[in-house]
Amino acid sequence: MKGIHQLTSLEIRILIRKGRWDKPTAGLAMGYAQANLVILPQKYAFDFLLFCQRNPKPCPLLEVLELGQYRTKFLASDADIRTDIPRYNIYRKGNLEATVKEIKNLWKSDFVTFLLGCSFSFEEALLRSKIPIRHIEENRNVPMYITDISCIPAGIFQGPMVVSMRPIPPDKVTQAVQITSRYASVHGGPIHIGDPSRIGIKNLKKPNFGDPVTIKKGEIPVFWACGVTPQAVVMKAKPDLCITHTPGHMFITDALNEELATF
Amino acid sequence: MKGIHQLTSLEIRILIRKGRWDKPTAGLAMGYAQANLVILPQKYAFDFLLFCQRNPKPCPLLEVLELGQYRTKFLASDADIRTDIPRYNIYRKGNLEATVKEIKNLWKSDFVTFLLGCSFSFEEALLRSKIPIRHIEENRNVPMYITDISCIPAGIFQGPMVVSMRPIPPDKVTQAVQITSRYASVHGGPIHIGDPSRIGIKNLKKPNFGDPVTIKKGEIPVFWACGVTPQAVVMKAKPDLCITHTPGHMFITDALNEELATF
Repeated sequence: MKGIHQLTSLEIRILIRKGRWDKPTAGLAMGYAQANLVILPQKYAFDFLLFCQRNPKPCPLLEVLELGQYRTKFLASDADIRTDIPRYNIYRKGNLEATVKEIKNLWKSDFVTFLLGCSFSFEEALLRSKIPIRHIEENRNVPMYITDISCIPAGIFQGPMVVSMRPIPPDKVTQAVQITSRYASVHGGPIHIGDPSRIGIKNLKKPNFGDPVTIKKGEIPVFWACGVTPQAVVMKAKPDLCITHTPGHMFITDALNEELATF
Repeated sequence: MKGIHQLTSLEIRILIRKGRWDKPTAGLAMGYAQANLVILPQKYAFDFLLFCQRNPKPCPLLEVLELGQYRTKFLASDADIRTDIPRYNIYRKGNLEATVKEIKNLWKSDFVTFLLGCSFSFEEALLRSKIPIRHIEENRNVPMYITDISCIPAGIFQGPMVVSMRPIPPDKVTQAVQITSRYASVHGGPIHIGDPSRIGIKNLKKPNFGDPVTIKKGEIPVFWACGVTPQAVVMKAKPDLCITHTPGHMFITDALNEELATF
């Protein structure tokens, strides 16, 4: 029997569907893009789609399913959005009500599903170019911070941009910008380079989400728009119901990270 | 008094608003992006927004206004979408009912306005790099063709992609790809290079829209996704009502073409 790291994206989705994998997906199906999940009732769908259109860096849409559809058309074949994610968070009026392994019983015909890009994709490209990624080296979650940069509101959705931070050696910063800029559909180039106070971050040692990481002497903190932003914005809007993946427990697609690169 | 070609984008919009300019906008406010207009009642808005998200090359969204809004927030200051376009086409059930100079009396609170990028933006960049643009040299409209490439459907919207064609000298084709790829929000890189029959075009001398242009010996026909696509798709879907600009009579924005370049 093959180990989990030898499985294809489809084989992993089937394992997850059968309830036999409910752990984080980092490191699985290397080379394939993983996606953030947001499911909302139809009455919120236009506003959220518009929010993503206006804020493509924190909210890079990879696929939007039509009303009531739970099978992806573009990102993966033979996928069922109700079962193929290891863990789901169920929010009602902005409060986390439950974490579950499948949502077949919760599914309603007025649901609209959004799949958004994830920085795992560009991290793989950085590593291939020998640019160190500290939180991977230190086996931690990436540190994430709430900034004072406002997203552009759309309908009921608004809030500050959340960013992830990676310390980069000064002689590698330009290359890190160039590499990540290729991946516009997975957050793209940095939104800020250097002094964290310029974007409202007081203390890099105290991230709002994830874990702090070591910043070595001379390294520059580089900040990318983060996929936690849309979740934070949706929670703040307190919709009747919203279903997301549980952080770290992503949807594994059949799309290669390289297919997402734009130049 | 300044001539029309010396006016700023705002000054031209005011002239248009007063009904004193109802001609095509090509060549006005050089350096500034011009936009295609599509206005639809709310019941069609999600499907059309999703169609644009799925087909970004023919339908590059520059701005979407919220329900009932007629003032742009991002592309232009002091602009009124009901009056600042030289000519509007009014379609009911897919049929052109009238061409008018303003739509104040037609405006309804359930309208949603979409502004889409236009190839004028990348043509300026091609010219700056001494890449010839034949339809400008020959003072014609760009030739446009209906292809056998299907757009990705969304809700009620579906149809073939319409492309524009520019003949490019063989030693300039790579550079034409590179330059236009920078402008992802105004159709981006070509969708096809060379043999027109591969995308279902039978005769380059007989465009479906616009005028034929001379193709000199050795020149390669290069095809870009065209902003006529969304209009053709909307007409085919026969919504109760749809208001667009009259072809060539665009919305002049305050956004520089260079601001739209992504790398």
